[in-house]
Amino acid sequence: MKTVNLADKLTQFDSHWDPHVVADYNDNDVMVVKFQGAFPYHLHETTDDFFLVLEGEMMMDLDGGDSHTIKTGELFVVPKGVTHRPRAEKECKVLLIEPKGEPNTGDTATATSKPRI
Amino acid sequence: MKTVNLADKLTQFDSHWDPHVVADYNDNDVMVVKFQGAFPYHLHETTDDFFLVLEGEMMMDLDGGDSHTIKTGELFVVPKGVTHRPRAEKECKVLLIEPKGEPNTGDTATATSKPRI
Repeated sequence: MKTVNLADKLTQFDSHWDPHVVADYNDNDVMVVKFQGAFPYHLHETTDDFFLVLEGEMMMDLDGGDSHTIKTGELFVVPKGVTHRPRAEKECKVLLIEPKGEPNTGDTATATSKPRI
Repeated sequence: MKTVNLADKLTQFDSHWDPHVVADYNDNDVMVVKFQGAFPYHLHETTDDFFLVLEGEMMMDLDGGDSHTIKTGELFVVPKGVTHRPRAEKECKVLLIEPKGEPNTGDTATATSKPRI
């Protein structure tokens, strides 16, 4: 049990689209991640996807053309089964929560690992 | 599906120790809450308890005497079964995640409702 400083954790890596686990909540990974550019469209068949912007601004593009802006101090939950694409023009720092073992792309064939820091 | 601005939600109530639901993540309530003073010691038998300080500073007092400081931009997860007491000298604004139906005191006899805003 310890306090986790998110800004400190975010100094420990520079890579984009590369979530790092900083805490556990029940069977979920609590992660920090840096977004820049556009991620591929994908969906998570069995889980919602939780995003909280810690610093910067991102877009959540949804299948069908809707797009939502998410700024510092704002959160967005993508319901399970909804095709989506996070996107950020400039680097954006995000708190991400997903169930343990869930591939970040929704597909184990293309997913990154989620190292713990 | 919509973006949730946490600061806006926090302007909608003044009460302390009174969590308000702002989003859903799988079977969890994502809530904002204002802490001031000391909450009773309690535990959650079947779930972890997730705290992220949005503004201010709080303490997490643990059974046995340990106490952890949690400041803006810091998170703390209390594992299930661990007796704890959130405390704040000055008002502290917090993002809280707990499973739906979980009493905030760990006990339905003493729990508050968790209205949605």
